[in-house]
Amino acid sequence: VRPQLAANIGATARAMANCGLIDLRLVAPRDGWPNDAALPMASGATWILDQARVFPTLRAAIADLDHTWATSARPRDIVKRIATARGAAAAMRCAVAGGARVGVVFGPERTGLDTDEVVACTELLEIPLDPAFRSLNLAQAVLLVAYEWFQAADETPAQRLKEFGRGRASMAQVHDFLDHFEAQLVDAGFLRNEQLRPTMVQHLTTFVLRAEPTDQDIRTLHGVLTALSGRRRHQLGPRSEEESS
Amino acid sequence: VRPQLAANIGATARAMANCGLIDLRLVAPRDGWPNDAALPMASGATWILDQARVFPTLRAAIADLDHTWATSARPRDIVKRIATARGAAAAMRCAVAGGARVGVVFGPERTGLDTDEVVACTELLEIPLDPAFRSLNLAQAVLLVAYEWFQAADETPAQRLKEFGRGRASMAQVHDFLDHFEAQLVDAGFLRNEQLRPTMVQHLTTFVLRAEPTDQDIRTLHGVLTALSGRRRHQLGPRSEEESS
Repeated sequence: VRPQLAANIGATARAMANCGLIDLRLVAPRDGWPNDAALPMASGATWILDQARVFPTLRAAIADLDHTWATSARPRDIVKRIATARGAAAAMRCAVAGGARVGVVFGPERTGLDTDEVVACTELLEIPLDPAFRSLNLAQAVLLVAYEWFQAADETPAQRLKEFGRGRASMAQVHDFLDHFEAQLVDAGFLRNEQLRPTMVQHLTTFVLRAEPTDQDIRTLHGVLTALSGRRRHQLGPRSEEESS
Repeated sequence: VRPQLAANIGATARAMANCGLIDLRLVAPRDGWPNDAALPMASGATWILDQARVFPTLRAAIADLDHTWATSARPRDIVKRIATARGAAAAMRCAVAGGARVGVVFGPERTGLDTDEVVACTELLEIPLDPAFRSLNLAQAVLLVAYEWFQAADETPAQRLKEFGRGRASMAQVHDFLDHFEAQLVDAGFLRNEQLRPTMVQHLTTFVLRAEPTDQDIRTLHGVLTALSGRRRHQLGPRSEEESS
């Protein structure tokens, strides 16, 4: 609503494109529309700028919508349902799944939405930020709301092992390696203290499992063991044979 | 790591301030540091720029940290634990609660982190965005990660009624008003169809409750009813008396 800087309209288009949104509506942009000054900040999201529609008033812009969230950091003397960006995104997804049309309304850079504009929307949206420093650029506010909209339907696992097509080693492969590892350590005399040996083996086993080895890792580690013990045998020869017997 | 534009360092400071973060570390910024070109985009978050520390290498910058998330949109041939911004934020909060020190590592604008830099970090972080348009400015990436860090500990209710110190009307106040409303509608002849009357009253009751009236709303609505029925009596006088009897 009444955006002042075309650069912010461009950055808004970019943030929308990041999050799969396409329907940009401009209410009385200060410097007119279309405006080439929006292009650099759009960073290629030009289809959103090309399809953007201009309206004279907020009421005209939202006439066909069922729910509208007014974004506003300033408290107002209006009793209205308010949601966080995340809460609003969940509500929007529910509404859209039920066949409703929804929109989020952002105010001018300097002043934000005026009270009549906030009143015209069905709900409020406020982005939780550090109360000591809430200053947020218009396009940054759009990005955070659009991001929450996208996350609300995104199914990327919160945490996983990125394998790039490589397989995790099977437990059998890992256990075979651990047996090889222990045998080499016995051979090298590293486990000669029988009292400490079980604990030492437990710690090394835990370390290896925590690394979640791939089958390539296991092959490499077998090679490392063989190389190290070969070098040791070459250097120490008979002595190591004695120790392991 | 190796940021090119001081403006992005400034915008990064602003995003950090929005989300309660203070420790900015710069690895070999291209144009040197300090750099006044960072100030305008910091939008007042100058204390973060003032405290920023410069390091010659990423390894030096993260030497005192326990966990480091490398942000990278480009897939690499490296098997590493990866989290979404939200998943990483939850993991960071857990780690910090356990006494660990954590950091998030962002690469240069044009190229992102190189493979050795990604390898030097303990985990990967990838922000889920529309695969068709993933282009994200450096400071926007910082904003989204910092935002998730802040949200992970924020307790703002996802949805609520923003009351600005005004109380919701009690159920008794609402029911008193509904009784007044129904009496006035009977008086006005609006409920003369006895078959439809229960349904009509149910719908009006539901409408009023859905609006979650404040005590001020209820006082205003009593006044509205009285004003409207006063005007009607003035206009219609005896006729309305007859209908209600």
